[in-house]
Amino acid sequence: MTFDIQRWAVKIEYDGTGLVGWQRQDNGLSVQQILEEAACKLCNSHFTINSITAGRTDAGVHALGQVAHLDFPAYFPSTANKIRDGLNYYMKPHAVTILQASKVNLEWNARFSATKRKYLYIILNRPSRPTLNTNHVWHVRKKLNVESMHKAAQTLLGNHDFTSFRATACQAKSPIRILDRFEVYQIEDKIFFEAEARSFLHHQVRNMVGTLKMIGDGYWPVNQAYKILEGKNRRLAGIKAPATGLFLKEIIYPNNPFTEQLPNPEIIL
Amino acid sequence: MTFDIQRWAVKIEYDGTGLVGWQRQDNGLSVQQILEEAACKLCNSHFTINSITAGRTDAGVHALGQVAHLDFPAYFPSTANKIRDGLNYYMKPHAVTILQASKVNLEWNARFSATKRKYLYIILNRPSRPTLNTNHVWHVRKKLNVESMHKAAQTLLGNHDFTSFRATACQAKSPIRILDRFEVYQIEDKIFFEAEARSFLHHQVRNMVGTLKMIGDGYWPVNQAYKILEGKNRRLAGIKAPATGLFLKEIIYPNNPFTEQLPNPEIIL
Repeated sequence: MTFDIQRWAVKIEYDGTGLVGWQRQDNGLSVQQILEEAACKLCNSHFTINSITAGRTDAGVHALGQVAHLDFPAYFPSTANKIRDGLNYYMKPHAVTILQASKVNLEWNARFSATKRKYLYIILNRPSRPTLNTNHVWHVRKKLNVESMHKAAQTLLGNHDFTSFRATACQAKSPIRILDRFEVYQIEDKIFFEAEARSFLHHQVRNMVGTLKMIGDGYWPVNQAYKILEGKNRRLAGIKAPATGLFLKEIIYPNNPFTEQLPNPEIIL
Repeated sequence: MTFDIQRWAVKIEYDGTGLVGWQRQDNGLSVQQILEEAACKLCNSHFTINSITAGRTDAGVHALGQVAHLDFPAYFPSTANKIRDGLNYYMKPHAVTILQASKVNLEWNARFSATKRKYLYIILNRPSRPTLNTNHVWHVRKKLNVESMHKAAQTLLGNHDFTSFRATACQAKSPIRILDRFEVYQIEDKIFFEAEARSFLHHQVRNMVGTLKMIGDGYWPVNQAYKILEGKNRRLAGIKAPATGLFLKEIIYPNNPFTEQLPNPEIIL
């Protein structure tokens, strides 16, 4: 059985703590399940409403601007605010929220239309334990050299075989990726890593940050990052940085469905 | 019985969620109890080690830079790092951490030596629920006018009788305070309120923010804040902003015990 559909793009923020990640799993609750179940409740559908996402984040990873699309039955009368507020209502009390919704045409695809993914990683670099952001940082006690890490990050830019920074379980056909930007900078006791590419391999950002951390703490010299890249062997690289510090920050689309301010009488004075 | 003492100033960060506030209470766990019990365990004292704090925050209120002093027995061999790391060890797993410790002379007093208190209040101003900072903001759905709130805040600056913004349970002898600074500004979907004064009345910051919010959402005109101040009656003012959005940010001392970088081989590369 088929029915006419309408496609909606949604921008999503979530706290990945306690979730099994984006994708549905048997062993726990996923963002996908929370979102799709809310969508079914919202339009009272007997059929599963499937979502396609731009970035399948791992367990414990957070998102500031994840994007997905959902196909609702065409007969469901909806507006951008109804989709946003309705999904948010049914996703309660989970720490997942729709920031914006935008109707898109059926050719638009949250995964395949995306031209860039931006990730943010945060290390809390101080002797004292975190209190206000325990699940949102990697706590590293030893003082890290930010300049060394930034220099090393620059050696990874460009078109490379990233086999050394790829999870062994990675399902991508090719280990070749183009890393467009990888900045490391410090604000007070936090060190920020910002990585941008059209797409990343599984665990690539966390594996790169783990290697940079071992350069920052003096275990390895700055040029070790490039040596590891050239070695094309996962066992050469550093540890995998924990999920807690990773945020999917933004997805870039040539035809961005979220540029237009949504008409919302409540938020325009 | 008396013994010789050594006095230590400590800078403390905490998440107030689930705590009854700074001060010991019968009905739950306080920051003071967590800190003092850790101090007793650290120096294996049979006597209670009392702490004096610069700002007795309420239940649910957080701190980025709370300051207290503790008197340890003089015989206890201690260094700044031992005090910091030792207290942090015994305060686990509570969301309270010592950022710095500094030995001070017996005339120095965390409460009475302080010349300025700085508070920060955060409103998350967007239609969508918070996910990553649920307990660290006041979530206001309706779009607030930041410029109006900032203008209104400026009318409260200076030496005034703040009776209208004072909790009925406030124990201060005088309702007169000098408000030195009160800035309101927005970064993305958050509105920040920064208030500075030598000292504040009980609930003063939260009551002022609650009134500004009612100006920001158009319920009251900008000049209502000053009218309320002049009325000297708590019932004239707006609602009390929730504790979740409030942070004790910094305590200023003419003789700042924390200026000196602590000698810490771990944090200096």
